[in-house]
Amino acid sequence: MDRNIQVSRLDRQAVEDQEVEIVERKGIGHPDSICDGVAESVSRALSQLYLDRVGKVLHYNTDETQLVAGRAAPAFGGGEVVEPIYILIVGRATKEYDGEQLPVDSTALAAARDYLSEAIPELEYGTDVVVDVKLGEGSGDLQDVFGEETQEVPMANDTSFGVGHAPLTETETIVREAERALNGPYHDDHPELGPDVKIMGKREGDRIDITVAAAMVDAYVDGLDDYDDAVASVREYVDDLAREHTDREVHVDVNTADDYDEGSVYLTVTGTSAEQGDDGSVGRGNRANGLITPNRPMSMEATSGKNPVNHIGKIYNLLSTRVAESVTEEVDGIRDLQVRLLSQIGRPIDEPHVADAQIVTEDGVELGDIEADVLAIVDRELADVTDVTRSVIEGDVSTF
Amino acid sequence: MDRNIQVSRLDRQAVEDQEVEIVERKGIGHPDSICDGVAESVSRALSQLYLDRVGKVLHYNTDETQLVAGRAAPAFGGGEVVEPIYILIVGRATKEYDGEQLPVDSTALAAARDYLSEAIPELEYGTDVVVDVKLGEGSGDLQDVFGEETQEVPMANDTSFGVGHAPLTETETIVREAERALNGPYHDDHPELGPDVKIMGKREGDRIDITVAAAMVDAYVDGLDDYDDAVASVREYVDDLAREHTDREVHVDVNTADDYDEGSVYLTVTGTSAEQGDDGSVGRGNRANGLITPNRPMSMEATSGKNPVNHIGKIYNLLSTRVAESVTEEVDGIRDLQVRLLSQIGRPIDEPHVADAQIVTEDGVELGDIEADVLAIVDRELADVTDVTRSVIEGDVSTF
Amino acid sequence: MDRNIQVSRLDRQAVEDQEVEIVERKGIGHPDSICDGVAESVSRALSQLYLDRVGKVLHYNTDETQLVAGRAAPAFGGGEVVEPIYILIVGRATKEYDGEQLPVDSTALAAARDYLSEAIPELEYGTDVVVDVKLGEGSGDLQDVFGEETQEVPMANDTSFGVGHAPLTETETIVREAERALNGPYHDDHPELGPDVKIMGKREGDRIDITVAAAMVDAYVDGLDDYDDAVASVREYVDDLAREHTDREVHVDVNTADDYDEGSVYLTVTGTSAEQGDDGSVGRGNRANGLITPNRPMSMEATSGKNPVNHIGKIYNLLSTRVAESVTEEVDGIRDLQVRLLSQIGRPIDEPHVADAQIVTEDGVELGDIEADVLAIVDRELADVTDVTRSVIEGDVSTF
Amino acid sequence: MDRNIQVSRLDRQAVEDQEVEIVERKGIGHPDSICDGVAESVSRALSQLYLDRVGKVLHYNTDETQLVAGRAAPAFGGGEVVEPIYILIVGRATKEYDGEQLPVDSTALAAARDYLSEAIPELEYGTDVVVDVKLGEGSGDLQDVFGEETQEVPMANDTSFGVGHAPLTETETIVREAERALNGPYHDDHPELGPDVKIMGKREGDRIDITVAAAMVDAYVDGLDDYDDAVASVREYVDDLAREHTDREVHVDVNTADDYDEGSVYLTVTGTSAEQGDDGSVGRGNRANGLITPNRPMSMEATSGKNPVNHIGKIYNLLSTRVAESVTEEVDGIRDLQVRLLSQIGRPIDEPHVADAQIVTEDGVELGDIEADVLAIVDRELADVTDVTRSVIEGDVSTF
Repeated sequence: MDRNIQVSRLDRQAVEDQEVEIVERKGIGHPDSICDGVAESVSRALSQLYLDRVGKVLHYNTDETQLVAGRAAPAFGGGEVVEPIYILIVGRATKEYDGEQLPVDSTALAAARDYLSEAIPELEYGTDVVVDVKLGEGSGDLQDVFGEETQEVPMANDTSFGVGHAPLTETETIVREAERALNGPYHDDHPELGPDVKIMGKREGDRIDITVAAAMVDAYVDGLDDYDDAVASVREYVDDLAREHTDREVHVDVNTADDYDEGSVYLTVTGTSAEQGDDGSVGRGNRANGLITPNRPMSMEATSGKNPVNHIGKIYNLLSTRVAESVTEEVDGIRDLQVRLLSQIGRPIDEPHVADAQIVTEDGVELGDIEADVLAIVDRELADVTDVTRSVIEGDVSTF
Repeated sequence: MDRNIQVSRLDRQAVEDQEVEIVERKGIGHPDSICDGVAESVSRALSQLYLDRVGKVLHYNTDETQLVAGRAAPAFGGGEVVEPIYILIVGRATKEYDGEQLPVDSTALAAARDYLSEAIPELEYGTDVVVDVKLGEGSGDLQDVFGEETQEVPMANDTSFGVGHAPLTETETIVREAERALNGPYHDDHPELGPDVKIMGKREGDRIDITVAAAMVDAYVDGLDDYDDAVASVREYVDDLAREHTDREVHVDVNTADDYDEGSVYLTVTGTSAEQGDDGSVGRGNRANGLITPNRPMSMEATSGKNPVNHIGKIYNLLSTRVAESVTEEVDGIRDLQVRLLSQIGRPIDEPHVADAQIVTEDGVELGDIEADVLAIVDRELADVTDVTRSVIEGDVSTF
Repeated sequence: MDRNIQVSRLDRQAVEDQEVEIVERKGIGHPDSICDGVAESVSRALSQLYLDRVGKVLHYNTDETQLVAGRAAPAFGGGEVVEPIYILIVGRATKEYDGEQLPVDSTALAAARDYLSEAIPELEYGTDVVVDVKLGEGSGDLQDVFGEETQEVPMANDTSFGVGHAPLTETETIVREAERALNGPYHDDHPELGPDVKIMGKREGDRIDITVAAAMVDAYVDGLDDYDDAVASVREYVDDLAREHTDREVHVDVNTADDYDEGSVYLTVTGTSAEQGDDGSVGRGNRANGLITPNRPMSMEATSGKNPVNHIGKIYNLLSTRVAESVTEEVDGIRDLQVRLLSQIGRPIDEPHVADAQIVTEDGVELGDIEADVLAIVDRELADVTDVTRSVIEGDVSTF
Repeated sequence: MDRNIQVSRLDRQAVEDQEVEIVERKGIGHPDSICDGVAESVSRALSQLYLDRVGKVLHYNTDETQLVAGRAAPAFGGGEVVEPIYILIVGRATKEYDGEQLPVDSTALAAARDYLSEAIPELEYGTDVVVDVKLGEGSGDLQDVFGEETQEVPMANDTSFGVGHAPLTETETIVREAERALNGPYHDDHPELGPDVKIMGKREGDRIDITVAAAMVDAYVDGLDDYDDAVASVREYVDDLAREHTDREVHVDVNTADDYDEGSVYLTVTGTSAEQGDDGSVGRGNRANGLITPNRPMSMEATSGKNPVNHIGKIYNLLSTRVAESVTEEVDGIRDLQVRLLSQIGRPIDEPHVADAQIVTEDGVELGDIEADVLAIVDRELADVTDVTRSVIEGDVSTF
């Protein structure tokens, strides 16, 4: 097989070297991320349901979860949700196969419940949040087979586009790692920090400003002093973390909109702003690599909730990121790499219309020195396209 | 105070002596009863919320729960719900008082969840059933005060009518007690019997036919033989129970619509027909005394979910039943008693426009012999009207 | 065929002769009646759809419409709806037949829209009221055939009960006719009168009190004087109408809860209290004869929205009323007639388990004089049972 | 005032000169665009409502409309919608001001109805599509005043980013103009073309491939030949239009997924794929300039439905586009211009943290030659920022 793979010089500066850089990550408790997370966990659960029941993944698409914000009355020491958040799971799914009814609605609800209880533990399912589901009948069985025994490479049925980058810049790294650490080890020790952590990184030249909006959970915060300590602790933690990733000048701000005199602080009952006025939906936040990066080309495609067997947009966004990461891990001398995959309708998806890897090399490295290696890795990863599907179904890869 | 109480002869035969009698009870797992139960538990929870937060019950009305049936795939040994039941709690409630927001929506959902888990234990909240809530703002505070310290007798703001009867006929007793026993002690020993038990009693002369429709729970039934045993066991149990209450000829049928040859039996996943096609709503089933009795005057008023402080229809239906029961407990010689209360707009509800007690005496008893006693009891119970409200809030009285 | 028809003496006074009588009618604009009307028009539309498309009526049941009240800001000269009324059409319907998809949802919505625009003309569909639909799949085709060419008499599949009465008492007549006239010719000349007219009749001995609650439409009322005139006009009209039907003493009150000093009057934007806080649902209001009559046995069955081909409760309630009316039209000497029909599972519905006609004869008339005539008419009407279905589908009979 | 405006060389090739270019536009009938359009028309209507009633725009945000697809049975000559599309308008709005209730829900529904009837004329409101609304209370009044008399420049309350480009490349121009023309003059003459027109442009070197997916409306298409003619006509029209904008090689394909042998063609009842399985939501489709352009930096911000008075993301996306267009209209010698605006929390929005205009000049033009002119125009447009708000409210600017 001859794949159309092109390796060329990227006709711009590496993002790391640009004068101004902006990066954002909406943490897992952000209303848009909640929708991404619910949609993707519903997707995984449906894939698994189909594999369990009929041995292969059937047609579905669940990339349209809508969240309508609730109302809450937070209070130091513990307030309450007054009006529940409403989440509507929207999509299509195959509800019957070979005469057997498949419990897609119940499965979707159970997946949402389990995901929410893990991601937003303070949110009580069924009272703080009402989840409903509208899954229409899909338009027929999936032609492409992804089963327990066999994985066919599906045909592209749409012109779609995926783009991935590597390596992350320092600012990108800080933004991504800070959110992950805050929602990981930090949270384990600091239950007062809710999962709705939004991080904005802005670099101008060699100064990096990190702005964190962190929802505090009122039950663990006794008063304004306590709150102030909690904010200071986050600031210090992120500051330390940032310095591990850069030698540039770093400034960290947390909850800059607070006004202590007015008693206006970012206090929540459940750890997410969805409890009070912030709506959300799928595909409005982080891209497939977990970041919003206006300095780089991005795909508008909502990755979360899409069927991982044959949705070319989902697969190519995840695959291009994976390709970029593999190349930069294995090949030295790359300062910035952008991988684009463009599908060709009617051809297997491991044979894109064009796969191009555009590179800014490090000083002293010529493109010609690494071109063959890059090409080989791209080719190898394309050949392994069905592994993206498998990783998604098994939950090994994040989509937002 | 001079209450307008009239005691007179009831101008018909006692129902016990009529030629044909029909009685019905929809068990607690019937879709209409589920709605009654949810509406009433939401009402209780709101009363309690208001008492806890502001010391008195505020304006609300939650008598409009709607249930949309789901779809299920029952199977011997255990099937599954395919499409969840949808329950919409509808009504009005005061959401803010004295600047404080009151969590009426969350409270309503929690009440529904708790009630459902007790009444229909096999029904998993949030996946087998989705509960949503639409409580509009009430039209202002309740003028009538029912607080922790003071209970005012409210004014009637509507012309309304309540009717109660006592004693129950044999057929009524059998129908009511059979459902209670099946959903009580019998169920404790027989988990295969679901709460959706519908009992129809028909008496022609001295023959009583009891027809039971009993939803069996598939997880506890291994096959058709097992099912047949379960049905036979219910039949025998009800037959024994009936004979404790009558010397008439009794015939009991259970699940008469079953067709074993066709494999069509009354098997469910959750123990309620709401899982498969049977919708429900408030006020469509049992009257306030727990029965549907076409031989007797009935009020159309939906009792469940109404505000027990000032909803005159709810109070008078419960009170007239209580009056009738008290009279027949305390006064001998009454074969049939019908108590009617008619409100007078603008007057305290313990001063009805008319309270009449119509009596069929037993042979040898003259109305004049008991009239004074009856009158005194009716007067006493009317004076104690706020106790009805208290009993309802504390959950001591059933409304369906 | 030998039908089990019994004619006997009714063991009570004619309602006309009882000391106290209560009657109520909720007008077509009352929230419960709106639900009845929507449910029944949806039912008619589905019957017609099935007849048009497949030549026979298929399985459906749409007797569960729920109305959630809106909010409005009425004002003399014309106010506005602030938050729309929400109506949810609930039920079951056959959505596919012989490979053809049937537009049951769209048909239901169109029927609701058309009904509402006729019944509540001031209510703008889609902005003042949002109508949604949840029709689950029915549990299979209707076995009983009611087609263009053939009408089979269906088998009773349930033990059900219908009851009808005739003739109406004076009070019943006044209550029913007043609402019809107000919502008919009176409304044509007086657009300020909305369709939400609720009429309560109370007779004590020879005094009849008629209490009318009449929603006025603000666009046609310029101020309080105008409103007062409108109220007075209704009072006078009802007073005149009442006197056509009785020689008893009549008192008419209209909108007794008004308080002009407080500026509290029954003014609406759309002519229905559903616009502001009054929820509604099917089967909570008028019985099949258009009245609520606690002095008479009533069926709890919701008639509106049920499938008229095989829903035994609907058919028997309508049929028993029709039988009672026919008998009293054709046979002289009947002061009060109560017809009860009790189904027998597994038998054709024109062969009820028992049909009894209980009669209070007029003075000087013996039951024996008219027994044979009554029996013959009952028999004839039972034989013609499928005509009830036809009348319902064609909209010739009202169900509430 | 000294605005921080930077003019610099764009460190990449003009998009027009890049080897591969991809552009997409989802037409106004695409499910995502329907949501954008509804959200934006609701936003405009609310702004207007607030201006009319209280003289200034209050707090609201309506950027979360969700569309759940319906089901349809299209047929040559005219099919039907079987299950309606469901649209849920989501957001926040101020519902009361100075004691007056504001009809935000009804206004939102009316705006959606009017927009849909214009944008998707074949879609019958209320039966083919059900629109519901969930607008929560906003978190208080908007501090920034945009009134009839005064327009304050609001403070930035968030770190946000807007990006605009000009001039459009040939491919971008073709894609945008083709959709506009098809949904404009072409549609006027060809009612068979529905508004759901999706156009993908792909340029490789000097070859431009335009792929059109065009929903045909069945009522205007009599059969397969007719359909084939309709497709051919669109192809020819777009081909002609494209050649007006480029001298490159152009290939146009329409409805490439059709399979005439299988009878599988892109036929619809209403002209949008939302009728059959394609869900949609706001902010998932076109960016503020009407295009999806992966070759250029894009903002993830959903522009449609946001409050135009103070939502910095909306304003900066529209303003940066406007700035770019003004500069390229007024200054010669610019081959590609990218304008970025980054807000500074707490500063008036006409004083961004940084406004940079990055330029690829045409051959022979030095940046220094035009820098001063560019700077002056950027400064002027920033000063005029409230005009963006005015244009949005008056509907003079498209947001998708």
